[in-house]
Amino acid sequence: MPDDVYADIKNANQSLRKHTMRKVWNFNAGPAMLPEEVLTQAQAEMLDWHGTGMSIMELGHRGPEFKIVADQAEADLRELMDIPKNYHVLFLPGGATAQFAMVPLNLFSKDHHADYIDTGIWSKKAIDEAKRYGDVNIAAKLEIHNDLLQIPTQEKWSLNPQSAYVHYTPNETIEGVQFHWVPKTGDVPLVADMSSMILAQPIDVSQYGIIYAGAQKNIGQAGIAVVIIRDDLINDPLSHTPTLYNYKIHVENKSFYNTPPTYSWYIAGLVLAWMKKQGGVKKFAEINKRKSQKLYAMIDSHKDFFINAIHHDSRSIMNIPFNLTSPELTQEFLDSATAAGLTNLKGHRLSGGVRASIYNAMPEEAVDTLIDFMKEFIRTRG
Amino acid sequence: MPDDVYADIKNANQSLRKHTMRKVWNFNAGPAMLPEEVLTQAQAEMLDWHGTGMSIMELGHRGPEFKIVADQAEADLRELMDIPKNYHVLFLPGGATAQFAMVPLNLFSKDHHADYIDTGIWSKKAIDEAKRYGDVNIAAKLEIHNDLLQIPTQEKWSLNPQSAYVHYTPNETIEGVQFHWVPKTGDVPLVADMSSMILAQPIDVSQYGIIYAGAQKNIGQAGIAVVIIRDDLINDPLSHTPTLYNYKIHVENKSFYNTPPTYSWYIAGLVLAWMKKQGGVKKFAEINKRKSQKLYAMIDSHKDFFINAIHHDSRSIMNIPFNLTSPELTQEFLDSATAAGLTNLKGHRLSGGVRASIYNAMPEEAVDTLIDFMKEFIRTRG
Repeated sequence: MPDDVYADIKNANQSLRKHTMRKVWNFNAGPAMLPEEVLTQAQAEMLDWHGTGMSIMELGHRGPEFKIVADQAEADLRELMDIPKNYHVLFLPGGATAQFAMVPLNLFSKDHHADYIDTGIWSKKAIDEAKRYGDVNIAAKLEIHNDLLQIPTQEKWSLNPQSAYVHYTPNETIEGVQFHWVPKTGDVPLVADMSSMILAQPIDVSQYGIIYAGAQKNIGQAGIAVVIIRDDLINDPLSHTPTLYNYKIHVENKSFYNTPPTYSWYIAGLVLAWMKKQGGVKKFAEINKRKSQKLYAMIDSHKDFFINAIHHDSRSIMNIPFNLTSPELTQEFLDSATAAGLTNLKGHRLSGGVRASIYNAMPEEAVDTLIDFMKEFIRTRG
Repeated sequence: MPDDVYADIKNANQSLRKHTMRKVWNFNAGPAMLPEEVLTQAQAEMLDWHGTGMSIMELGHRGPEFKIVADQAEADLRELMDIPKNYHVLFLPGGATAQFAMVPLNLFSKDHHADYIDTGIWSKKAIDEAKRYGDVNIAAKLEIHNDLLQIPTQEKWSLNPQSAYVHYTPNETIEGVQFHWVPKTGDVPLVADMSSMILAQPIDVSQYGIIYAGAQKNIGQAGIAVVIIRDDLINDPLSHTPTLYNYKIHVENKSFYNTPPTYSWYIAGLVLAWMKKQGGVKKFAEINKRKSQKLYAMIDSHKDFFINAIHHDSRSIMNIPFNLTSPELTQEFLDSATAAGLTNLKGHRLSGGVRASIYNAMPEEAVDTLIDFMKEFIRTRG
């Protein structure tokens, strides 16, 4: 793209930013906020990707241009997460919900039973789907102690050493609980739905058999999921598995068995490149820690107004749900927050209340703004 | 968005257009060219959808904003195709390849056999997947008469009146053949993979049980498929069907069972709105007829250079493959075409040669440019 055109787009973007950008902070649980830099780059490249005269969404998935996008996204994810060489990285359609079926369909090929840890609504969805293909042992459940939700410590789990795998959900977006430790499952592969916490903090991939994540929280836009799968788990799936649900087919075809969701893959690539530029996962972990700690501190120091009924050792750094003392006050809080440009703070339709989802793309400034708003809300209603 | 910002974006776009836009005509078979107006609108709205201060890809799929996008896209598709009320319209992930499995998984619930018409590589892919779930009768095959490919007329078909459905592919992108008539299947539902010809010409939806189409040719970008399904065909699928492959679940949840590919749905909506503004399907049918007729006329009037070995009654109006008299000349043609800004004319990796895919978004001007290029190519090599 010629320099003067790029300058025009930049001017237009600056103008946009001045007027509208990020006067709104969007606390939605997913699809969620994306980094402004990513949107600006996608906008600038919309009509001409890298001098091709075409949008990346108009380019063939088997062409040399999209290959650059696809390969770079995988390389950046491997670097950011330090993914060992014996793991495949797949970019697949269908989000995490497709993985709820793909995991048992592909891993039940030898043993038709698995352990699942039930820590919330997303765990349950994975469990319900797995039950359709084999025996599911609920090895542990989310606990309540002194009215506080708590992740069950591993000594309470009843794992079956013959299981094909152990599945858990390290972060539950609706309950707002998170594992701050990694289960030990010995030789049984550990499978994790990391949709809502992938790339939020460093993890040791080698402790997992499969990691999967829908993109629409920390990776990009809806329509694509990332699957990281250890090589020895690539086997023939159950015989009735649809071809598109077969990991082996996707590994053999490097996620190009059929036309992949190319634009979602491209946006994921922009987010991953942005993360590298910002300092990588460690840097985001620091910021995420600060963001969540100050928001929990605000909630805990005003218990007459805000309640987050989750044990300190089980609190999510990504999704922070809280209640006010009455439904009316909750509604008032949500309405004034929206008016103040703090949007989509409404809790999940199944749980109600307030929920602040503060993924990687949510800057610390936005959390500070929310805290200031909470203080002001208390002051005027106190 | 304030007017002055919109003006800035418009200026930037005009500047872009002047320098780069559509100096390139992209003849890719899919993902394919999109209308310039659609890309321009997507670009202008990238950082602020309708004054929300957020991109549509950042907005929750269950929020009021995306509901507007989703409902409008469905309404526009219903209007453009005149879809009867007893048909559901679904927007699903996974492209047409997912439908290759979903059709038998959902329609084999009573009878485990179906008729398939094999007219090319896409038919075969659908057949291979269906065979995994029941008995497939190949009721007819693409024919060759006097070295010309020809769609088999229906009197030659051996349909099984007990079949759960009859499946065919009205347009084959690789072979470049198209049905210019609709099979009569009586009470047996007719199922069509219309990925490469949906919205290219008026069709009578009521003659079909299911119409499905991957979006990346005539509807929008990769990552989403449209499924139009008659109400009486919504039944319980085979027991091992993944939940995301269950039409009934999608109908009950209006394609919102899980997070749909929201941005792909949005782009589809922009394309459908653009089609309405241009005059609807009839208008596109006229243009498509002119575009294809003049390109075939060019090919046929220079048989010493170009060969399209397809019977006149079976030629595609969307995908026009042709060969030159030697592989060397074909390569020379492709190289000079690319240099002239006529890109992605290379034939499918399985067939070679040249292929011009001229979907709805490809303006007549581009086909004229291609024809002029072909004339010039002949002149200089003649």
